[in-house]
Amino acid sequence: MRQFSAEREWGRFHDPKSVLLALVGEVGELAELFQWLPAETAAKLAAAEPLRARASEEMADVLLYLILLADVLGIDLATAAQAKLDDNARRYPAGSRWRS
Amino acid sequence: MRQFSAEREWGRFHDPKSVLLALVGEVGELAELFQWLPAETAAKLAAAEPLRARASEEMADVLLYLILLADVLGIDLATAAQAKLDDNARRYPAGSRWRS
Amino acid sequence: MRQFSAEREWGRFHDPKSVLLALVGEVGELAELFQWLPAETAAKLAAAEPLRARASEEMADVLLYLILLADVLGIDLATAAQAKLDDNARRYPAGSRWRS
Amino acid sequence: MRQFSAEREWGRFHDPKSVLLALVGEVGELAELFQWLPAETAAKLAAAEPLRARASEEMADVLLYLILLADVLGIDLATAAQAKLDDNARRYPAGSRWRS
Repeated sequence: MRQFSAEREWGRFHDPKSVLLALVGEVGELAELFQWLPAETAAKLAAAEPLRARASEEMADVLLYLILLADVLGIDLATAAQAKLDDNARRYPAGSRWRS
Repeated sequence: MRQFSAEREWGRFHDPKSVLLALVGEVGELAELFQWLPAETAAKLAAAEPLRARASEEMADVLLYLILLADVLGIDLATAAQAKLDDNARRYPAGSRWRS
Repeated sequence: MRQFSAEREWGRFHDPKSVLLALVGEVGELAELFQWLPAETAAKLAAAEPLRARASEEMADVLLYLILLADVLGIDLATAAQAKLDDNARRYPAGSRWRS
Repeated sequence: MRQFSAEREWGRFHDPKSVLLALVGEVGELAELFQWLPAETAAKLAAAEPLRARASEEMADVLLYLILLADVLGIDLATAAQAKLDDNARRYPAGSRWRS
């Protein structure tokens, strides 16, 4: 992604607020795929084509902007996610059936 | 994450629309960290503490819900992201200075 | 709202991208209220206290930032909404049971 | 809007989580209009055509889904917004230059 941006001189667009708005745009596209699906059949419908391929694409876009934002901020996303998982394990002991 | 959910019987919460709304909630928390930062100093401020640690946490939450949604839908997020990168390289040839 | 902002010298914060991120933050808070509610009981639960009061507050926040953004851009939101309703009536003739 | 929905039998789509995802979709479209605008010229660019008309449309969509959600939940949005303004006036006395 760094190379891709450098070859197009796109770094100048990548301040955090802009990248964050781009992420919001992709989350919005993902939401549009699901909005009118009945809740009880959404998983089944979205796991089948053509929805699955479209959801894949939008989720990839969300991930790529998240990684770009992490790169701009110097954040290691994998380390951050592992720390969060450990933190969640402490906050919600195994057997907690309810969540907040 | 699968084990974590199973131990808490949280799978029943994880229909796609619910997980997507949870993702939206985390994107909102991330946006709140950046909203009033001046655009020109946002990157510098967000790369320093205390903002960096808070942004790390919210970005981890976004990533974890994105992975959970991918798991619910049976989507391989890494493959999807690579396909998107390849697609972007075709859509925007090296040297394209403008983006849509 | 204009007077409120002027008395606090908050106009300097109100560039469109910042206000938009603030709106995203409030939409995120609204999403958090609904995310784990079962789809079939969400309307009933959200129409009763304590959820109704909390949803009211978050929806007010979304509306206020939307109005602020309209003011910053010189957009008359009521006229825009009426135009959109007229446009929707043309796009989806009465009797259309499906929507896109 | 009630009449419009009734004539199309769209009420069956309008559970809160679905309407909320539709709102998120429209906020995403709004974000896409602004994401790559330079912060310092965004207000000027967005107050001129063609961006102003497109922003008007997306903002109208956000407003209409917000009103629809309020209707589904039995919330009076105008009263909620006024209450929030009063609350903000108490939380941030005139002369507060900083906001949280």
